[in-house]
Amino acid sequence: MKIKLLTLFSSIVLTSGFSQTDKDVLKTIYTTSLTNGHSYQWLDYLSNTIGGRLSGSTNAELAVQYTKSELEKLGLDKVWLQPVMVPKWVRGQKEMGYFEALGNINKVNICALGGSVATPEKGTKAKVIEVSSYKDLESLGEENIKGKIVFINTKWEQELVSTFQAYGGCSSERYRGAAEAVKYGAVGTIVRSLSSRQDDLPHTGSMSYGDLPIAQRIPSAAISTNDAVKLSEALKRDKDLMFHFEMSCQQFDDVQSYNVIGEITGSEFPNEYILVGGHLDSWDLGDGAHDDGAGVVQSMDVLRLLKESGIEPKRSIRVVLFMNEENGLRGGRKYAEEAKSKGEKHVFALESDAGGFTPRGFSFDCSDLMFSKVESWKPLFKPYLIHYFEKGGSGADIGPLKNNDIVLAGLRPDSQRYFDHHHAANDTFEHVNKRELELGAATMTALVYLMDKYGTSTITNVEEIRD
Amino acid sequence: MKIKLLTLFSSIVLTSGFSQTDKDVLKTIYTTSLTNGHSYQWLDYLSNTIGGRLSGSTNAELAVQYTKSELEKLGLDKVWLQPVMVPKWVRGQKEMGYFEALGNINKVNICALGGSVATPEKGTKAKVIEVSSYKDLESLGEENIKGKIVFINTKWEQELVSTFQAYGGCSSERYRGAAEAVKYGAVGTIVRSLSSRQDDLPHTGSMSYGDLPIAQRIPSAAISTNDAVKLSEALKRDKDLMFHFEMSCQQFDDVQSYNVIGEITGSEFPNEYILVGGHLDSWDLGDGAHDDGAGVVQSMDVLRLLKESGIEPKRSIRVVLFMNEENGLRGGRKYAEEAKSKGEKHVFALESDAGGFTPRGFSFDCSDLMFSKVESWKPLFKPYLIHYFEKGGSGADIGPLKNNDIVLAGLRPDSQRYFDHHHAANDTFEHVNKRELELGAATMTALVYLMDKYGTSTITNVEEIRD
Repeated sequence: MKIKLLTLFSSIVLTSGFSQTDKDVLKTIYTTSLTNGHSYQWLDYLSNTIGGRLSGSTNAELAVQYTKSELEKLGLDKVWLQPVMVPKWVRGQKEMGYFEALGNINKVNICALGGSVATPEKGTKAKVIEVSSYKDLESLGEENIKGKIVFINTKWEQELVSTFQAYGGCSSERYRGAAEAVKYGAVGTIVRSLSSRQDDLPHTGSMSYGDLPIAQRIPSAAISTNDAVKLSEALKRDKDLMFHFEMSCQQFDDVQSYNVIGEITGSEFPNEYILVGGHLDSWDLGDGAHDDGAGVVQSMDVLRLLKESGIEPKRSIRVVLFMNEENGLRGGRKYAEEAKSKGEKHVFALESDAGGFTPRGFSFDCSDLMFSKVESWKPLFKPYLIHYFEKGGSGADIGPLKNNDIVLAGLRPDSQRYFDHHHAANDTFEHVNKRELELGAATMTALVYLMDKYGTSTITNVEEIRD
Repeated sequence: MKIKLLTLFSSIVLTSGFSQTDKDVLKTIYTTSLTNGHSYQWLDYLSNTIGGRLSGSTNAELAVQYTKSELEKLGLDKVWLQPVMVPKWVRGQKEMGYFEALGNINKVNICALGGSVATPEKGTKAKVIEVSSYKDLESLGEENIKGKIVFINTKWEQELVSTFQAYGGCSSERYRGAAEAVKYGAVGTIVRSLSSRQDDLPHTGSMSYGDLPIAQRIPSAAISTNDAVKLSEALKRDKDLMFHFEMSCQQFDDVQSYNVIGEITGSEFPNEYILVGGHLDSWDLGDGAHDDGAGVVQSMDVLRLLKESGIEPKRSIRVVLFMNEENGLRGGRKYAEEAKSKGEKHVFALESDAGGFTPRGFSFDCSDLMFSKVESWKPLFKPYLIHYFEKGGSGADIGPLKNNDIVLAGLRPDSQRYFDHHHAANDTFEHVNKRELELGAATMTALVYLMDKYGTSTITNVEEIRD
């Protein structure tokens, strides 16, 4: 039986792969995005008029109101806010660091990791023990660590072509470093910024103490990649150098926030949902233009481009602008919970959360059979230099929707520059190229169009087969 | 007989397409470039210590000396300079423009086009006639043009995915505009900068008066894309507005310059040459980091990466840093002439002159049979996201080498941002990403390795076939 279905599927792929109409529709979508896209102007406002949008901040709420109001202008069938409680962590005003080595004071660019406790008022000052990974802590033991600041200086694997793979190889150092170091009596941690570039900017990002009681938590900061090199070199010359840092960050009670949702209701299958989205919150150092302002405005433009291109989807297409991806994922979880409790059948979800760079393709989290179907559409994308169709992860916010039926996908833009800006003060609008952003929006729209048209079932005419 | 050869070739492709060794060699090349490449540091010096390198300038000569000296450090078999006479055009210090409309003075960012004559000392001031192409001039005729400045406001076709295609669609407006306008009595031309971006930077580039006597030549400038919009709008409100511009550029006699050449002599076929190159000269407004500092340093690194990767080429591999691509192509012509007169057999030439952005693949100028052979190597490049193998143009400098036997190719990086910087003041080092540049160098090296190993003949064992 399985073979029979596979055979049937093969023939579907070969015969109904795509039509001249599909080629024309894709051309219309791309042309509209490149000549009359809205994503860039939305991103300008989100980045330059609002700015960084950390969960629980006033800016995050301004972004909710702004995007809701912009979606309302598009003539969608529904636009609404989905309430969700989110954590509120505030960086505070004071962030500074330096080390004293061989009589010199060396200023260090630091930033608190998201979720960190503050240092004492007068700062944390201690000797430094350098490790290349928190995994080295166990063998060093308390005798080498107690009373010191642990400096996690993890190498970025430059030889990996995918910078996301390199990030994946060291992100747990930032996330778990403090929780591990505290076990051996460390008084603080400083982490080499997770970036592929040597520069002076510290990169923040979330960290967690697990269930460690508040009183035992130690302050945790990132330092710039240039400062990591300097500190490491200085430690070779003076292993007893003193590192000092001050941070005034603070965790507050959860606050009310929202996912922003818009919908074009499907003409034939209104109860089947296709979701496209990104996350509205961002880190606070830059203006969150790439992470994930780009994904937000591209997702908004998908619905607009469908309408502008005269496409009336058969299924309901939702744009969801998730709140709190960066330090909690509350928005993504809330959306999935509510979809489940309402019995909403989501057939496809696509997230853009890898920067507004030139799109290269998609990563699909689905069955092999479904992947073969999607792969058969690849030639349609060739004129737009979209070549990357691979199985893999999708996006953090849509992850909670995962089940056996849904197809999940992530837009995969060129990744080379992403970690130059990720979670740093230079994740700003001027580093987003208009055409690259618009090509991404068009690429997402094209896939949504095809998914809507051809559906995510790998078995057509199931009734006939059963007959 | 033809069929027989084709059949034989098919089997070659299938059986000798690539080996595990080739995969390993490519991995070594890419890893070496990304972890121990020299292209970025060379580009830093070329861009930031030397700067813009217009033919005939002191900077161009400094670049000749610098790159020769750096090649000499690589332990190549030969490094030498090939003399070539080049034009010398100098921008001069004075460049300014404004228009007066409805009582307001509106400053305009202008730059002389390369090769333009100066304005009179007190500037050129006249009414403006706007056209969307020089092709419109004929129908407008002398009665509408005489005594005016022709404003060529050609639309950039944003809907084209390849920005090079869009550039190709309007570059003759810049090159020929003045020569055409003068026929109808124009006193000057101003051209909308050939850029995909709306900003305040004028973009220079070469123009030609053809064989027009010097006394009849009219000054020709580019204005920024933002200023083109402003001027066009102002003309709608005040068609008699006056445009004023001043330029003090000057053409001198030709001067002595050089192509810089380095060679690894082949172990088996020393008299077969594989060439890799870019052009050392650049426009003068920026520091020529993308155009074509990137191509220069990538080409230099190809030879270094071959050596670092332990590859001993069978054929002679030459790096050629051409002088005067921008406004004369003298270097490319000289190299080809000399190669021909010496009977040097060039089997393959690869140019990088499309910016230091993420490489996407290559464009090949060769026979269909040879292209099939090259295309069979494509899977080897997949791990590096190199997907673009198409027939098409190669590079201006290597063009003069074209004959029936040589395979010509051009590196094709992502083109979306290229014309944000092309020939403008922001073609600077900080807009080149280290990893993108290094991926390009590795991609070029990998193709050179394969071309050297498998040769450019589409018929192997010719003797056996003839037997």
